[in-house]
Amino acid sequence: MLRFYTAGESHGQALLTFLSGLPAGLPVDVGAINHELHRRQLGYGRGGRQKIEKDRAEIFAGVRHGQTIGAPIALRIENRDWANWEKILPVEASDAPETESKKLVAPRPGHADLAGSQKFNFHDARYVLERASARETAARVAAGSFARQFLKCFGMEIASHTIQVGHERLERRAQWEEIVAVCADLESPLRCVDAAAEQKMIAEVDAALRAGDTVGGVFEIVAHGVPVGLGSHAQWNEKLDGRLAQAVMSVQAV
Amino acid sequence: MLRFYTAGESHGQALLTFLSGLPAGLPVDVGAINHELHRRQLGYGRGGRQKIEKDRAEIFAGVRHGQTIGAPIALRIENRDWANWEKILPVEASDAPETESKKLVAPRPGHADLAGSQKFNFHDARYVLERASARETAARVAAGSFARQFLKCFGMEIASHTIQVGHERLERRAQWEEIVAVCADLESPLRCVDAAAEQKMIAEVDAALRAGDTVGGVFEIVAHGVPVGLGSHAQWNEKLDGRLAQAVMSVQAV
Amino acid sequence: MLRFYTAGESHGQALLTFLSGLPAGLPVDVGAINHELHRRQLGYGRGGRQKIEKDRAEIFAGVRHGQTIGAPIALRIENRDWANWEKILPVEASDAPETESKKLVAPRPGHADLAGSQKFNFHDARYVLERASARETAARVAAGSFARQFLKCFGMEIASHTIQVGHERLERRAQWEEIVAVCADLESPLRCVDAAAEQKMIAEVDAALRAGDTVGGVFEIVAHGVPVGLGSHAQWNEKLDGRLAQAVMSVQAV
Amino acid sequence: MLRFYTAGESHGQALLTFLSGLPAGLPVDVGAINHELHRRQLGYGRGGRQKIEKDRAEIFAGVRHGQTIGAPIALRIENRDWANWEKILPVEASDAPETESKKLVAPRPGHADLAGSQKFNFHDARYVLERASARETAARVAAGSFARQFLKCFGMEIASHTIQVGHERLERRAQWEEIVAVCADLESPLRCVDAAAEQKMIAEVDAALRAGDTVGGVFEIVAHGVPVGLGSHAQWNEKLDGRLAQAVMSVQAV
Repeated sequence: MLRFYTAGESHGQALLTFLSGLPAGLPVDVGAINHELHRRQLGYGRGGRQKIEKDRAEIFAGVRHGQTIGAPIALRIENRDWANWEKILPVEASDAPETESKKLVAPRPGHADLAGSQKFNFHDARYVLERASARETAARVAAGSFARQFLKCFGMEIASHTIQVGHERLERRAQWEEIVAVCADLESPLRCVDAAAEQKMIAEVDAALRAGDTVGGVFEIVAHGVPVGLGSHAQWNEKLDGRLAQAVMSVQAV
Repeated sequence: MLRFYTAGESHGQALLTFLSGLPAGLPVDVGAINHELHRRQLGYGRGGRQKIEKDRAEIFAGVRHGQTIGAPIALRIENRDWANWEKILPVEASDAPETESKKLVAPRPGHADLAGSQKFNFHDARYVLERASARETAARVAAGSFARQFLKCFGMEIASHTIQVGHERLERRAQWEEIVAVCADLESPLRCVDAAAEQKMIAEVDAALRAGDTVGGVFEIVAHGVPVGLGSHAQWNEKLDGRLAQAVMSVQAV
Repeated sequence: MLRFYTAGESHGQALLTFLSGLPAGLPVDVGAINHELHRRQLGYGRGGRQKIEKDRAEIFAGVRHGQTIGAPIALRIENRDWANWEKILPVEASDAPETESKKLVAPRPGHADLAGSQKFNFHDARYVLERASARETAARVAAGSFARQFLKCFGMEIASHTIQVGHERLERRAQWEEIVAVCADLESPLRCVDAAAEQKMIAEVDAALRAGDTVGGVFEIVAHGVPVGLGSHAQWNEKLDGRLAQAVMSVQAV
Repeated sequence: MLRFYTAGESHGQALLTFLSGLPAGLPVDVGAINHELHRRQLGYGRGGRQKIEKDRAEIFAGVRHGQTIGAPIALRIENRDWANWEKILPVEASDAPETESKKLVAPRPGHADLAGSQKFNFHDARYVLERASARETAARVAAGSFARQFLKCFGMEIASHTIQVGHERLERRAQWEEIVAVCADLESPLRCVDAAAEQKMIAEVDAALRAGDTVGGVFEIVAHGVPVGLGSHAQWNEKLDGRLAQAVMSVQAV
């Protein structure tokens, strides 16, 4: 059974991906993992953090000589921003004045700040947001890259694209080849298969940025070459659509 | 940790609910469980099966003297229809000609028939649909009634209502009291808080029935009195929204 | 993944076995399950309960036409003794004086009585012992019979025998054929492969019975024809020896 | 729910401990973790590897300002020996001749070498032994130190001592205070509470070393101050004795 967990804070030393259940002998392309990490950092309208980080997977367990060995996989993605935070969020107790400097006492709507602080009786939402942060998805992307390489051995491919931002929507059905192409295009600002629709979506983002707001959207993930019979109809928690829904809904901004 | 599983085929002897993790001492109202099972059987446009069944929970483990005892709960919901099926779907091998009589060799779109049959190399989708059937949700309703009685001890209540059928939609925001009232109203055909909107929704159902088709809709589930901090922001598979999404997406018609 | 749970109280209506994860198409011999349930009831020095019960598995889910169908399996084993207990341990609240008649207020050493009562704040250990009772192992035997039938498809067989009771011990190494034979021998009082050693073991049991005591022992379980590589060295909780140890240590008298 | 996993190879870059489920606000003493790691490296008759390593936990997630923050904990223990192995066991594919130099083609009895190699079709047991190695227990010790610090908040303490090596056995019952003392004594060669018995045990180790053999033993783990009602009698896989048995049996040399 494939299982993965992540650890790590947004401004801590590093993110961790723990992944177990891959069989031995799977060729692992570290470059492909780093390519996916790079893709995650792109996209029109991203925040300033992406300028600081240049995410790379440092595998230190479970892969030897370019192959999985049937042991759990562990990898780290360093936070370059840690250099600016090591006095603010040290592991050990500290009297340094910096530890007081980044307290967040005004919880932000739509975030876990308020609920998490009340749950754990924190007087500061910093500890909550550090873990609830969308930066954690970098560790998921690394896990996903292993899954993608595994599925490829069976002829399966996954690609995604943007079909709506704000009120602007792709009005036609995208073809698989288009989706693959735009998904791989590092220059594509929003990974929309239609240039005209994309320009309107960019305008939606710009309008939100000007208003100091954010804007939602819709993306489509397509799995290609999936064999019949994956998942199960036998029990509520084994159903594939339920499991996929959980995975997608657990992404921070979804 | 609360866990539940179900077992049972649509035309088998019975459905089973297995539920573990409730603490000892929770008062259990069997009448409330049966009331929920009855509610599940109502609703405008239901199929003929509801005329055959009159679902009742027969608890046989985990509840004594009207209270949980800290042991796993097991209950059965008999299938009255079994009387018509015991020669068709017997547990033991059989040469009776009836066993051939209900084979399903034309898989129905939108069901698990085709995928399940290919997965297990069945020449008949009967075994798949028997378990994939929405009748299984009766067993979930029984589990849900225990959960509801447990949550009520902490001041939490759950209610749901219909906000769209086909293209007809409730255009206003429903109040909690309205939702509770319509949710409990056994005479309400679609559990919509607005009578005029409901009439239009009924017309949508009628049109679909006339066309030999089905029609989708949207429902809203509201949890009231939920304390801050349930769930967790710490790990992807502990997030409450992901877990709720899985639960809802695992319902057969969703 | 194969998973099983049990439910049911010692003097409740029935025991339940819930088993999921078996593939479709496994031939199921109900007679073999009942044979195993019968074997469990034998053995020199058993208590009086075995005279009341005659355990039989009533499968009601997951098996059709003598085969698994890829759905969860559920079966019940009726408690004949329930006829004597239904006024004492009813599911619903009751004012009947019988409900007071079997309270256990003197916790027995070596049982869960004291710990369970303190855990759940019971003034009566009855609710604890009803579930902690070794009668629950009947439900495990039924699950085990499915596992045995599954393993047999791959050439694996399991047999066990007694090698020590009190201070009396089988002094030689038993052969596989001997173990299989004694394991299947319904007349064997203690399932020891050596008649002389068995007589001494019986004397140990008799002495304990005369003293109003119990006596421990040692048994050996042999798995034959196991393919290389079951289990895993990769993670502490996947190791086969740890999992087998948990399974054995969870048996009530072990 | 407390969960932990480890990753890492014996001669890889590092071992990893992943631990989740600790509440926020638990004071974490990193010195105590390192003290436990040091204790693990002691003991009469240890192999040469202990001279190379000086294990220290490098926490990089889940602990800030000396406390847990309700996020998953991740820590690394570097392998100093990696300096000697990085050309032999690189993560990426390599043509370097060193990658051939440490192949293990003669499986060692009592190890996972043979089973693991057959399972994964390796022509070299190196990949198996790297993960099956007892060095992995360092990562468990770190997890255990967190558990110990957590239990201490509730007045629980754990200590262990050696009661048998080969045929030499502690003949008296040890007192709690003695066990605590010997457990903490970094000079104690075998952590036996009786000096005379320990000398005989050391002689057993010496004899085994001279013979190029190993010798087994018996240790006792005592948990002190445990509240009544931990664990559960309700289900086979929730029973505390079964779970403890799995944990102990999963240790490499047990």
